[in-house]
Amino acid sequence: MSEQLKHHLNKVVEITDEEFPSILEYFETVKLKKKQNLQQIGQVCHSNYFVEIGCIRMFFVNEKGIEQTTQFAIENWWITDYLAYTFQKESEFTLQAVERTTVLSIHFQAQEKLLKEFPKLEKYFRHIYQRAYAASQMRMKFMYDFSKEELYLHFNKHFPEFVQRVPQYLLASFLGLTPEYLSEIRKKSIS
Amino acid sequence: MSEQLKHHLNKVVEITDEEFPSILEYFETVKLKKKQNLQQIGQVCHSNYFVEIGCIRMFFVNEKGIEQTTQFAIENWWITDYLAYTFQKESEFTLQAVERTTVLSIHFQAQEKLLKEFPKLEKYFRHIYQRAYAASQMRMKFMYDFSKEELYLHFNKHFPEFVQRVPQYLLASFLGLTPEYLSEIRKKSIS
Repeated sequence: MSEQLKHHLNKVVEITDEEFPSILEYFETVKLKKKQNLQQIGQVCHSNYFVEIGCIRMFFVNEKGIEQTTQFAIENWWITDYLAYTFQKESEFTLQAVERTTVLSIHFQAQEKLLKEFPKLEKYFRHIYQRAYAASQMRMKFMYDFSKEELYLHFNKHFPEFVQRVPQYLLASFLGLTPEYLSEIRKKSIS
Repeated sequence: MSEQLKHHLNKVVEITDEEFPSILEYFETVKLKKKQNLQQIGQVCHSNYFVEIGCIRMFFVNEKGIEQTTQFAIENWWITDYLAYTFQKESEFTLQAVERTTVLSIHFQAQEKLLKEFPKLEKYFRHIYQRAYAASQMRMKFMYDFSKEELYLHFNKHFPEFVQRVPQYLLASFLGLTPEYLSEIRKKSIS
């Protein structure tokens, strides 16, 4: 029983103890080892994922063959490639476990059915996407406004646990820095 | 009567001719002249806007005092600063008409009431935000992956009418280019 998902749903809508097991039936639990892929570039993006434990990163492979991380999701975050998911088409991203991770996975058709059976969950997902979109508007601003050093300092200030948790080479990739330059910035900001 | 909003709602949920006038009552029509502000940096972001006619841009002012455009919205697009809107706090962005524009404006509290009276509109807004978030995930990828020239070429290929419509200095700002450099790229891409 995923008390965690129930708790998260209940932040937005009221879900009774009787209703929750029927909701959970639409989900599948997927356990991933560190660096195991949940979904791969070129595959149709069938599912949406709720992180129960651990951390997922989303990346694409650039022209030079380098993995470019664009996003992370930790506990209580939803993640998928939403364009590929919405149109049920091939994804340009891979989703991979950064550490040992457990997600609740829901298939596109299952989510459609779930929302028909429990229309009040439309409100929950409206909230989830509204906030995700809000955060992405701010992130866009930072990408225009901040130098890479400022981006790191901002990130470190607002998400300190995250900066400690994620391997430095992935954090560097996400921030668009080389690991060496990130290491320099870190030393400077500590001293 | 905004047939346009009705048509847009009906793409996702069924709205009857009887229901629509009650929905429209929650909105206010705002007409803007070219370069008129809809909302300003430092003001609490009270409202969410549906563009009926025209074009709105969203910008912040960077350290050098330069307006940096981060987003545009044309007909049938929703726009606001969603972080400031969600938490009813001061916005870091200005929303301004690029040309003569008409928007339907809905106040935060009015939208809450609207969604209580017509819960099926949760599905509509869930769709709106899901797609907006999906588009922003792809845009983030382009910002990592593309050179500024590639960004322009991609934009020109996928949104040709838009590139024709928006003043070049605003398009340059949005793409993070100088107007001169944009002009060079355009000449090169035409020849």
